[in-house]
Amino acid sequence: MKIIHKIKDMVEFSENFRKDGKIIGFVPTMGYFHEGHISLMREAKKTCDIVIVSIFVNPIHFGKNEDFNTYPRDLSRDLKMIENLSVDAVFNPEVKEMYPDPEGLFTFVDIEGSLTKTLEGKSRTGHFKGVTTVVAKLFNIVVPHKAYFGQKDAQQCAVIKKMVKDLNINIEIIICPTIRESDGLAMSSRNTYLSAKERKTAPVLFKTLQMAHHMIELGEKDPKVILNEMKKRISKHHLISIDYISIVNPETIEPVNEISGKVLIALAIKLGKTRLIDNIAIQ
Amino acid sequence: MKIIHKIKDMVEFSENFRKDGKIIGFVPTMGYFHEGHISLMREAKKTCDIVIVSIFVNPIHFGKNEDFNTYPRDLSRDLKMIENLSVDAVFNPEVKEMYPDPEGLFTFVDIEGSLTKTLEGKSRTGHFKGVTTVVAKLFNIVVPHKAYFGQKDAQQCAVIKKMVKDLNINIEIIICPTIRESDGLAMSSRNTYLSAKERKTAPVLFKTLQMAHHMIELGEKDPKVILNEMKKRISKHHLISIDYISIVNPETIEPVNEISGKVLIALAIKLGKTRLIDNIAIQ
Repeated sequence: MKIIHKIKDMVEFSENFRKDGKIIGFVPTMGYFHEGHISLMREAKKTCDIVIVSIFVNPIHFGKNEDFNTYPRDLSRDLKMIENLSVDAVFNPEVKEMYPDPEGLFTFVDIEGSLTKTLEGKSRTGHFKGVTTVVAKLFNIVVPHKAYFGQKDAQQCAVIKKMVKDLNINIEIIICPTIRESDGLAMSSRNTYLSAKERKTAPVLFKTLQMAHHMIELGEKDPKVILNEMKKRISKHHLISIDYISIVNPETIEPVNEISGKVLIALAIKLGKTRLIDNIAIQ
Repeated sequence: MKIIHKIKDMVEFSENFRKDGKIIGFVPTMGYFHEGHISLMREAKKTCDIVIVSIFVNPIHFGKNEDFNTYPRDLSRDLKMIENLSVDAVFNPEVKEMYPDPEGLFTFVDIEGSLTKTLEGKSRTGHFKGVTTVVAKLFNIVVPHKAYFGQKDAQQCAVIKKMVKDLNINIEIIICPTIRESDGLAMSSRNTYLSAKERKTAPVLFKTLQMAHHMIELGEKDPKVILNEMKKRISKHHLISIDYISIVNPETIEPVNEISGKVLIALAIKLGKTRLIDNIAIQ
């Protein structure tokens, strides 16, 4: 497993395998791995010859009052966790390698319209602009055939798919299922922020999503009724403040008026000081 | 010479030559060729194995009151003009192939800051956002090693270079000199709009740029003095209204306070109803 810090070395590494006709799979991450990340790498290894993983905590997709500085980082822990996964290269650039001139004028990739302005986009102004920009950069550096993202960030998945389609980026986007702890909590690097008491409360998120799923299975068609029940259930926990709970079209992330076809039920809450998101996609 | 209309055919054409290790040169154009375009293709053929030319009048970089509808288009004329140039493929997509959903939300590539807001960016709001977006799309479709642009659009050259650098696009940008008529008028597809009388007046643009160059050679360091003389000279022609005349840094397109090092003298005028631009770069 090669550890690469410089863009030009990453470009060269990838180019050499491409020339040999190898299929390159790419897993972009912010590091501090959990089973969710590992599942993406396993999936990439199944269908590609070469797997490249990036670890980069991208400053421009964090808001001013968000956790960029405290986001957990531990490269040696991460490398140890994946040493048996046959990952071919880890790309771990410094911030100044990716943004040599962060103060000057800068090129952004941005999606206009509601897709990037609702849910996470509403709570985290400019977040998706930072995401699309860094992912476009990473795609141009790594030039993979396929790239792997987790369903846990459902809106991010929709945003990346839209960017790839609109800009004619010739990369197949593969979305892998959310990986959960045994009690249902979606794995997240931010779970490490939780106190023992908060951690014990956290599974209510998935339980509430499952309850909503169950209501739909029983025939409920009115999103308002479902959202009300969800809010009621979560509000019982005084440690939690709700940011949003929404039932949306999984591609456009626009709220639906009636449950029919595919929907995404997505939520974001604060549990103490920790912001957590989760969702389920319903066919 | 292959004529390609569909994105997937263009991707495949290019990919096959890349796999064979061929170096691909790309000349993006809006068609209605003149010697400026031809010179870019000749230059590409000199240094690349395969030359791909795109002809696409990009709606999103024209303003509402600009000449998108009347911009000259004549594919058979264009193809005839380049039949002996050993161009390997012409990519000529329809608008709906490039923008299948122009009404919906859309991904843009945009450069923040003054580079895209001054000169052409000031006169043509949103122009460079349309340029960077379509060029990013074309780069992703054609995936060339090198791309060729004309110095006549000096600010566009600076914008493309900035985009390529910021987004880590692995394409070498090559800027070729402005090609001029024998009387100095910079070649442009828009010259066809000029009446006989206007055409006779048009060479004053280059003459005025040359005069400015001469003033600098004689030691003039004050941009204000030079700009005044230029305005005086051009204003003698009542057919012309000046949009801007500016002396700027050729990379940042920011006005300079003193002539030293490289500068770009750029102007835009209206001659009757026709908007023309020209510039000279001074070392």
